[in-house]
Amino acid sequence: MKLPGQEEFDVSSAYENVPTGELDSGPGSGPSPSGSSDTESRELGVTKDPLLFIQLNELMGWPKAQEWRETGRWVLFEEKLEVGAGRWSAPHVPTVALPSLQKLRSLLAEGLVLLDCPARSLLELVEQVTRVESLSPELREQLQSLLLQRPQHLIQSTDTRPCWGESPLPELKTKIPRRQNSLRQKLPPGAEVGAVLAGELGFLAQPLGAFVRLRDPVVLGPLTEVSLPSRFFCLILGPPTLGRSYREMGRAVAILLSDPQFQWSARRASNLHDLLAALDAFLEEVTVLPPGRWDPTARISPPKCLPSQHKRLPLQMQEATSPSAWRRAGVEHRHNHMPHAPSPELQRTGRLFGGLIQDVRRKASWYPSDFSDALHPQCLSAVLYIYLATITNAITFGGLLGEATDGAQGVLESFLGTAVAGAAFCLMAGQPLTILSSTGPVLVFERLLFSFSRDYSLDYLPFRLWVGIWVATFCLVLVATEASVLVRYFTRFTEEGFCALISLIFIYDAVSKMLSLTYAYPIQRPGSPAYGCFCQYPDPGGNESQWTRTKPKGRDDILSMDLGLVNASLLPPPECAQRGGHPRGPGCHTVPDIAFFSLLLFLTSFLFAVALKRVKASRFFPSVVRKVLSDFSSVLAILLGCGLDAFLGLATPKLMVPKEFKPTLPGRGWLVSPFGANPWWLSVAAALPALLLSILIFMDQQITAVILNRAEYRLRKGTGFHLDLFCVSVLMLLTSALGLPWYVSATVISLAHMDSLRRESRACSLGEPPSFLGIREQRLTGLMVFLLTGISIFLAPVLKFIPMPVLYGIFLYMGVAAISSIQFMKRVQLLLMPPKYQPDLLLLRHVPLSRVHLFTAIQLACLGLLWIVKSTPAAIIFPIMVTQGWVLLGLVGVRKALEWVFSPQELLWLDELMPEKERSIPEKGLAPEYSFSASDSEDSDLMYQPKAPEINISVN
Amino acid sequence: MKLPGQEEFDVSSAYENVPTGELDSGPGSGPSPSGSSDTESRELGVTKDPLLFIQLNELMGWPKAQEWRETGRWVLFEEKLEVGAGRWSAPHVPTVALPSLQKLRSLLAEGLVLLDCPARSLLELVEQVTRVESLSPELREQLQSLLLQRPQHLIQSTDTRPCWGESPLPELKTKIPRRQNSLRQKLPPGAEVGAVLAGELGFLAQPLGAFVRLRDPVVLGPLTEVSLPSRFFCLILGPPTLGRSYREMGRAVAILLSDPQFQWSARRASNLHDLLAALDAFLEEVTVLPPGRWDPTARISPPKCLPSQHKRLPLQMQEATSPSAWRRAGVEHRHNHMPHAPSPELQRTGRLFGGLIQDVRRKASWYPSDFSDALHPQCLSAVLYIYLATITNAITFGGLLGEATDGAQGVLESFLGTAVAGAAFCLMAGQPLTILSSTGPVLVFERLLFSFSRDYSLDYLPFRLWVGIWVATFCLVLVATEASVLVRYFTRFTEEGFCALISLIFIYDAVSKMLSLTYAYPIQRPGSPAYGCFCQYPDPGGNESQWTRTKPKGRDDILSMDLGLVNASLLPPPECAQRGGHPRGPGCHTVPDIAFFSLLLFLTSFLFAVALKRVKASRFFPSVVRKVLSDFSSVLAILLGCGLDAFLGLATPKLMVPKEFKPTLPGRGWLVSPFGANPWWLSVAAALPALLLSILIFMDQQITAVILNRAEYRLRKGTGFHLDLFCVSVLMLLTSALGLPWYVSATVISLAHMDSLRRESRACSLGEPPSFLGIREQRLTGLMVFLLTGISIFLAPVLKFIPMPVLYGIFLYMGVAAISSIQFMKRVQLLLMPPKYQPDLLLLRHVPLSRVHLFTAIQLACLGLLWIVKSTPAAIIFPIMVTQGWVLLGLVGVRKALEWVFSPQELLWLDELMPEKERSIPEKGLAPEYSFSASDSEDSDLMYQPKAPEINISVN
Repeated sequence: MKLPGQEEFDVSSAYENVPTGELDSGPGSGPSPSGSSDTESRELGVTKDPLLFIQLNELMGWPKAQEWRETGRWVLFEEKLEVGAGRWSAPHVPTVALPSLQKLRSLLAEGLVLLDCPARSLLELVEQVTRVESLSPELREQLQSLLLQRPQHLIQSTDTRPCWGESPLPELKTKIPRRQNSLRQKLPPGAEVGAVLAGELGFLAQPLGAFVRLRDPVVLGPLTEVSLPSRFFCLILGPPTLGRSYREMGRAVAILLSDPQFQWSARRASNLHDLLAALDAFLEEVTVLPPGRWDPTARISPPKCLPSQHKRLPLQMQEATSPSAWRRAGVEHRHNHMPHAPSPELQRTGRLFGGLIQDVRRKASWYPSDFSDALHPQCLSAVLYIYLATITNAITFGGLLGEATDGAQGVLESFLGTAVAGAAFCLMAGQPLTILSSTGPVLVFERLLFSFSRDYSLDYLPFRLWVGIWVATFCLVLVATEASVLVRYFTRFTEEGFCALISLIFIYDAVSKMLSLTYAYPIQRPGSPAYGCFCQYPDPGGNESQWTRTKPKGRDDILSMDLGLVNASLLPPPECAQRGGHPRGPGCHTVPDIAFFSLLLFLTSFLFAVALKRVKASRFFPSVVRKVLSDFSSVLAILLGCGLDAFLGLATPKLMVPKEFKPTLPGRGWLVSPFGANPWWLSVAAALPALLLSILIFMDQQITAVILNRAEYRLRKGTGFHLDLFCVSVLMLLTSALGLPWYVSATVISLAHMDSLRRESRACSLGEPPSFLGIREQRLTGLMVFLLTGISIFLAPVLKFIPMPVLYGIFLYMGVAAISSIQFMKRVQLLLMPPKYQPDLLLLRHVPLSRVHLFTAIQLACLGLLWIVKSTPAAIIFPIMVTQGWVLLGLVGVRKALEWVFSPQELLWLDELMPEKERSIPEKGLAPEYSFSASDSEDSDLMYQPKAPEINISVN
Repeated sequence: MKLPGQEEFDVSSAYENVPTGELDSGPGSGPSPSGSSDTESRELGVTKDPLLFIQLNELMGWPKAQEWRETGRWVLFEEKLEVGAGRWSAPHVPTVALPSLQKLRSLLAEGLVLLDCPARSLLELVEQVTRVESLSPELREQLQSLLLQRPQHLIQSTDTRPCWGESPLPELKTKIPRRQNSLRQKLPPGAEVGAVLAGELGFLAQPLGAFVRLRDPVVLGPLTEVSLPSRFFCLILGPPTLGRSYREMGRAVAILLSDPQFQWSARRASNLHDLLAALDAFLEEVTVLPPGRWDPTARISPPKCLPSQHKRLPLQMQEATSPSAWRRAGVEHRHNHMPHAPSPELQRTGRLFGGLIQDVRRKASWYPSDFSDALHPQCLSAVLYIYLATITNAITFGGLLGEATDGAQGVLESFLGTAVAGAAFCLMAGQPLTILSSTGPVLVFERLLFSFSRDYSLDYLPFRLWVGIWVATFCLVLVATEASVLVRYFTRFTEEGFCALISLIFIYDAVSKMLSLTYAYPIQRPGSPAYGCFCQYPDPGGNESQWTRTKPKGRDDILSMDLGLVNASLLPPPECAQRGGHPRGPGCHTVPDIAFFSLLLFLTSFLFAVALKRVKASRFFPSVVRKVLSDFSSVLAILLGCGLDAFLGLATPKLMVPKEFKPTLPGRGWLVSPFGANPWWLSVAAALPALLLSILIFMDQQITAVILNRAEYRLRKGTGFHLDLFCVSVLMLLTSALGLPWYVSATVISLAHMDSLRRESRACSLGEPPSFLGIREQRLTGLMVFLLTGISIFLAPVLKFIPMPVLYGIFLYMGVAAISSIQFMKRVQLLLMPPKYQPDLLLLRHVPLSRVHLFTAIQLACLGLLWIVKSTPAAIIFPIMVTQGWVLLGLVGVRKALEWVFSPQELLWLDELMPEKERSIPEKGLAPEYSFSASDSEDSDLMYQPKAPEINISVN
């Protein structure tokens, strides 16, 4: 079965670090929208050599029964046979002793080198190879029969039980070929084999070396593990010596052949000289590990990120590659330096709605492919995953909004709004991968607006409608004036400040909600008056009135008074009420055990979600299981919490869900009346908060859009900042009129959406990391998600079993996951680490620690400021909102001011450069102080590694 | 400040893998007991070369202001200057491009090589070096002034702020030398410097290479970072070229000089030829990393375990080493293969008490040093740490024993017994590093014995006294017959089975104790009758009797009856009783919230202890802080639990501590009466359970002793299996007579004791791992620990604040920590891992996975059997104990049977070989199938790596 997202082969990724991003080309110059993304590599015009699978057969058992055994295999990395354990090692970076390479060189120089050998079968090949003068006819015959002997291969079947088998002739057995498939499957069609045979041979008097390139690749019968045609054949035999030198030389040939550049040369070599030159070129580039400080048996895992092969490519090969592709690669590389350089999309047109019109035009041409590109099984799994994340979000935010607005909006509104707004956005927006959701800042605003309305006895929903109308108006003005081009000034500093603030609000809210439960369900300390509770039956006599008379003044009153009851029992309150009695006494309203149980539920769901999320990186279980457990961590944590709650059956506070499809607030229709009980002038006054909300929405929407459209995600269909904002403002109007929550792009869940749609080259069996090809850009997955969300409105009978503490726990998890994913947190951690123990971050190689700490401290101070502003009491609500909006914008200003404090080089590492500054860097970058670090060319490859295409923000 | 345990330098550990263990030499042949352990390396008679610190100064800033800057430093590993960041990188394995080494070779061959140069200052040296024909006088002068120029060094002060300074002449500034100390301090006295200067020089027409060995090392003024005398001086200069080839050649020289073998040769080379031969020898041994599959800028961390340098040593150097030392090394090595080969100590003498007498003789000779060796500050910190662990243990086991025996033994007895037995053992025992403690199996036995006594109405303590007398007798018989030599048959299989069983009992007990609290403090579900509770005041009328009459028959009775009370209030029960009333009603005895709060305390203390333990491996905080947090994790976790409990002030169950110094059980004196209320024949019948307990004690004591005396801990003072058992049996008698708990060696806490007394070479600043030198074997730390424990009996007023759930949590932690430390658990985890993701364990390289799984499954089955036997109901108590003792012994038999299932080679990897089997291995080991793996010499170094001297069982 194919795993979703791993269908393409990208076996030549070592050659090809050619980006597929088209961000920098205008709408006209890009590839035609109908061109499938899978054809990119062909478009680049590279004539690729087939993949070479290299196998080493060693001669074993000398002097007794001699047999060939496959002991190693390579594509780019090495897998070694663990003879004792009968298994293949994990792929690792091959290492070889230098003398083996040198001995190999002299053996090749003296040995037999046949280039473009016309042999058409193993028999012919063996005859050609053994036609050496030094061999007597008998020896030759003996050697030939040895070479034709069937080698032993380790065949690993899928159920992990290794079995030794001989590679069969295809027509003889049909069972083993099926088993072979696990390796064969991983090799792309057209792959070729290089077979290396090496060992010590008792009857040889002198070494025998042969290197053969076959003119036409030929299946060498049972020689190789996979029955693919062989291109190279190499024989290294010699008289028995101390050690294992000939076998090591065999490994050296295999390692050489697995080197892309040597392979390239060996395929084109026309004589021995070319071959030796290629070997020397290889030796020129090897890195040496000194003895005694490195254990040669230790295995080095394949690096996550292969060094670029571009500068190693032979000139001819560089020419073979389409020049335009390399030019584009160069552009991309420059883009990595300055990801916010004004691309054509973010150039101001100067016309009213010019950006919007441009966006619509660009997007219209991709529209058909936005549906056809979704026809892939991976999309189904993405839909399921994002659907679950979306309804978790809708439930959580719905619950919180319901509390914040006293039921003016609730879970039902949350579901309905999410479905309507989300689906509409997916159909119309510029970036349909975006998932709309209620977000933290908007939730905070809504809570403030509600408490303001309550304090001044305003009719909330009509007031809110006017705020919405004004926000939509302001946003349309921003669209018309092409304000979105300002996103160029959003650097990582701004993004991190924003993201950290939202995350902290999540965490703070979750914890404070949880703690507020201990007020609702107080803990019963010894001596607290929770014990006393009667059930009193109605008695028209004096007792009832006696109670009412002496009703709570102080606790002591009740405790010490004489009761004199007759018609009373000790029934618990609910049963008492059932039987017509009244529960009396101070202990009747306390529900014991709830507070601690809620805390347990809260912690359990939080820790369980964290633990499940981490399963992905663990070594346990097959990767499919781990992926499912990790992707659905929050859903599973909610289920666990509900199960625990149901098992104990305590009366924990549950999610309030309406039983019918009508607004949560009793007595209102779906359409909000424009004025309600409010005075008419309030509709004008609403413009003031709306102005502030507009800034908030603009920032919230656009920061997310910037993050989603990062160059490293290699989106091909372009951005749509103006169109997105337009859609959001139209939806704002709609949701306000219906009394539904407001929606903007949700960073975390949208990134999860993109992550689940990654296109990757299939991971090669031999350790090559899968390479990222892009994202399946289409509108269908989002649309499906929101349709399903709409249908889920009828889930109410199920949702009412969800305890609130569980939702708080998931909220805490979302906050913690979001805040831990930003580089800012890594730098905060550095503050606590002694320099000696700090990880080897590239950042720390290039920026003095004190400067890194200063930058972090400034960010912390900004965050503190934002937090203070956020938590100022609601009495001065309007100044708050003014400040909140402006301080967020102010982050851009603070970042600008940082250019006075930090050098451009430091900012390049700590943050990103702002558009204007970039132009001045080329001069500054070569100032004497930096020239050393710039000439330190070994660093240049890794310099931008932190921006490798990796979506590492974990999903709610 | 020196850290305890790191005072010795062992800078030559790369040369010297010479073990210091004397296990295999008889009492006469070992070094004299008075010889301090610190003199071992001297004893070996190796004439060591001084340590060489290598520094690379690069010429920067060409063509403008040229200056020298220190950019790298080496001892064995490399630290590189991060120029941008102004800090030293972490130490890493140096790598260099092969061409640099080759170019270096040709430069040296043509350049100036001065061996035993008599220069006595930098000036003289520079003059000698620049006396080259190719230089014109002006150039020479220019070059000389450049070479005399003061280089820039990065000086890192301790407060992590780097600062650039010029190395000053000692008499000029006094401040900076103080700062230098951080590096200087780490270099041992007598260390020498190798200074390498490299760079591109504009006015040079051809390359200039010079390699100088100074006859007498000389402080080269400001040239080097540390003002130590320089032995080597190397100059590599050349005309500016593309790239950084001359500077890379400088690095190559530095890396060469940092290689122990090259250094050895360079110190002894008498001409250029010798030097080039040494370089060629170096090249012969380098490992090569192919290009394109490894990023040359990635840094490889120093391996945890350096490869043995022995086979790389030049023959002369091997001769210089005392042959006996190498012979001993060989013995040790063989011992690693077969750690249970009968050493003289475990040879049966054939005489009654022969082993005991031998033990006493051997130990007597060490007795004075057992006190003098303790005079080291490290011992103080060990005392504090083990004291805290011991009282935690005493509190925990005391609490559990008190519960198990209904107060017949309690915390007071636990403290007293631990102090008396522990101190006596430390004074008399064969292995005074052992810490005595109550242990799991004995606790289980005691619980069974008590419930048997209760069921048959026996007088517990007198019965127990007789059991103790019999056990002591049986153990003396075992000592007399030298039964302890049987420990040879305890392989890892036995140890792991035993350890896993104990750990599981810990875990099971902790969880079941915790759950039993929810019965004592039931959770109040909605509808549970917990609400009703009156306070009724005495009224001689009918009401009181009415209550008594209708007292609990069934719950419904109470709930529905009419009450008709007059003199009643709602006071909570304690206050009600104070005022003379009686609490009435089903709700009076329930204490709400306790169950969940206890669960929270339990989980908190467990998780907190786990988290703190892990702090040691984290990157945060300075290492001293981490060590303290981690070492005192359980104490801190207990404190946190107590604090939380005190903060909320709930009536959780607390530890019961007697207020006075008298037995916990009221009405008994300190001496147990020999018969009490029991019939006389019971003193004879007690022999039956005693027989079983004897087996248990023998196994428990000896398995721990075997673990503590493992060869990898390099104990020098020999074992005392017979003497230890003798001491335990004498103490058994004493504690039984006083009604104190029984004590045997506690594995985990004893290992912690040894761990806190490790002697290690100081970690070199440049990445070399500190090497393990042995254990500070003495009697004083243990003695101090138990004296302190005795004094702690008067801690009762403090101890009564400890909530029981916290102790259960710590217990759970102890169980989990112990079970996770054994290899068995690693193999159980393998069962859950797909082969692809399994870690690269050496075990897995050599044994087929299915065999590993089979071995694990057999162990699991044995464990299951033991568990079933353990948890058989108490009704058939005697058969249980029979079985429990015998099944434990049976593990040895099962292990023996495994030899029919697994090959010796497999057992060598999975377990250890039994004594008889070992002798047959040499023949079997060379069978054809294994010869391949045996000739696979590259593995031999790492083969026994898992047995590196590492005490990795975490502490209680």
